[in-house]
Amino acid sequence: MADLSRCLPLTRESVFKAHELTKPLIHETPVLTNKTLNRMASTPRELPGNARPAKPRMGAFKARGAFHAIERLKQDPDWIADDGMKKGVVGFSAGNHAQALALAAQASGIPSYIVMPDGTRPNKIAATKGYGAKVTLCERFGREAAAAKITAETGARLVPPFNHPDVMLGAGTAGLELQHQAENLGSALDAIIAPCSGGGLLSGTALSCEGTPIRVFGCEPEFEGADDARRGFIKGERITEVKTSTIADGLIGVVGPLPWSVIYERKLVKAMYAVTEDQILEATRLILERVKLFVEPSAAVPLAVVLFNEEFRAMVEREAGENGWDVGIILSGGNVSAEGLAKLFVP
Amino acid sequence: MADLSRCLPLTRESVFKAHELTKPLIHETPVLTNKTLNRMASTPRELPGNARPAKPRMGAFKARGAFHAIERLKQDPDWIADDGMKKGVVGFSAGNHAQALALAAQASGIPSYIVMPDGTRPNKIAATKGYGAKVTLCERFGREAAAAKITAETGARLVPPFNHPDVMLGAGTAGLELQHQAENLGSALDAIIAPCSGGGLLSGTALSCEGTPIRVFGCEPEFEGADDARRGFIKGERITEVKTSTIADGLIGVVGPLPWSVIYERKLVKAMYAVTEDQILEATRLILERVKLFVEPSAAVPLAVVLFNEEFRAMVEREAGENGWDVGIILSGGNVSAEGLAKLFVP
Repeated sequence: MADLSRCLPLTRESVFKAHELTKPLIHETPVLTNKTLNRMASTPRELPGNARPAKPRMGAFKARGAFHAIERLKQDPDWIADDGMKKGVVGFSAGNHAQALALAAQASGIPSYIVMPDGTRPNKIAATKGYGAKVTLCERFGREAAAAKITAETGARLVPPFNHPDVMLGAGTAGLELQHQAENLGSALDAIIAPCSGGGLLSGTALSCEGTPIRVFGCEPEFEGADDARRGFIKGERITEVKTSTIADGLIGVVGPLPWSVIYERKLVKAMYAVTEDQILEATRLILERVKLFVEPSAAVPLAVVLFNEEFRAMVEREAGENGWDVGIILSGGNVSAEGLAKLFVP
Repeated sequence: MADLSRCLPLTRESVFKAHELTKPLIHETPVLTNKTLNRMASTPRELPGNARPAKPRMGAFKARGAFHAIERLKQDPDWIADDGMKKGVVGFSAGNHAQALALAAQASGIPSYIVMPDGTRPNKIAATKGYGAKVTLCERFGREAAAAKITAETGARLVPPFNHPDVMLGAGTAGLELQHQAENLGSALDAIIAPCSGGGLLSGTALSCEGTPIRVFGCEPEFEGADDARRGFIKGERITEVKTSTIADGLIGVVGPLPWSVIYERKLVKAMYAVTEDQILEATRLILERVKLFVEPSAAVPLAVVLFNEEFRAMVEREAGENGWDVGIILSGGNVSAEGLAKLFVP
């Protein structure tokens, strides 16, 4: 990872720079709209005169943090001089970051070492290996130690999954694109809602909206305390441990200190919302059947908030007035096998 | 339906006209490419020197035939003078045509009557009603009679699901877009493969390629004789009856006489290929997990041919030479519930 002292400051301007740097490498994420979901989001619940509290606008997100981190490394003369391109990069992740880092490294011809916990689903391991990574399995809570060992042995540079400016700024480019696309479609967004696990995507999104009128909201599953960031907002400090078996298994991480500083301390996220397992499952079904996208339950959490969270809906009804809000919904995560998804829906 | 005597001739030029007429009403279908699938399609099997027999390029298709039929009706002064806009349209279909016709009629403020066979899945009935259609259920093989009865009672005009020039030409616009998009991506297509049930989509696609160097292939499931068009090619005449319980249940129809005249008699389709249930299931999995699109098994049939049909692959290896072919693959059909798809994949 680039040294912290050399990182860009955490501002909207830096998200623009990250976007410039990674644009040639990243597919622009399409924005989708869906009449059925708009209607569901707009059903008046308590105020019959206010028919359009929120219009979902869909985006999706992947690999942006990892690509940006790799591009930034390639601009670091010390890393290049130290043979960084040959020594490679190290990552630890059970999920999308593993594949994203392997893919980004492969695209630049850089070796990658990925540490994954025992019990990681075989399709994720296979996909990561498919991108040329050397995969090491480790005990469930020994990821960072295993990664440190590889770093020591190989000289490869650690790229953490979320707690780093390069990853946060890269992730934030998704928020930037969503804003531009909404403007191109003729209406600026009033709000964006993004999921929160380690907080890379949510903090990056928040930075991408800094200084604009767009309100940013975060969301999590609530099962077994998975809503650590929401609880942190209430307690006034970051929660540092969570154990949950929510079906939104891409969102079980605890928000990291650097994302937390953006999300909470700098007040760039207005509020956190949490949804139940049933709400997540129902939102997943709607994305599959109506939007026709194959997503994992984690990706459906923001839509579940917009459609089913009474607190969120009441807040929008209260604040949006007659015209309602255009809400940008960031969909993140399609990393699931057909069998994995089938288990959730088998009658 | 417009009188046959007033229909456009079945030519590529007419597909262009259909495209002009319906373009404002239809979302352009995105073309997707996928490295993993390209690699799988390109694995040399028998000729090690020929590494790229086929590159899949994905498109999707929906509702084009129905929208074109409605727009053509609206240009028919006799239909308008006879109060056609108020009397409405009638369709019979268990599948996508039902919803498509209801949607297209609703978009023009025209009433629609849809006849669906008993046993049609509840989600399809609900979706069709959701587009404002009056739905009538009938015996499995009594669709045409039930539709004729409604026509007699209401004066509504019948719009058949595939056996009509307007529907075929409208469907063919998908083939036209795929050609243009491939050119915009920098390489003209060498071939297109499309699924065949009643033959509206396949015949329209074939017309869209008439006079170009693009070869058009058709495909079907083979289970319990579902490959009626393929068997018709061998027998030299159209097969007129099929009963099959293939998982590709959007493709159980028998090819209609008018599509058959384009596909077979005018030789606009070069060959038909069929795939097994296992091959369809595996291709469905790949579209879900790799392309991240939520599709029904019917949509996966063309990809199954490109990846797994030995006859097709051998033909491409023989005919394409060193450089292989760019093959456009038309994906059609996402009309399935989460439970319906789960049943296929539950471990």
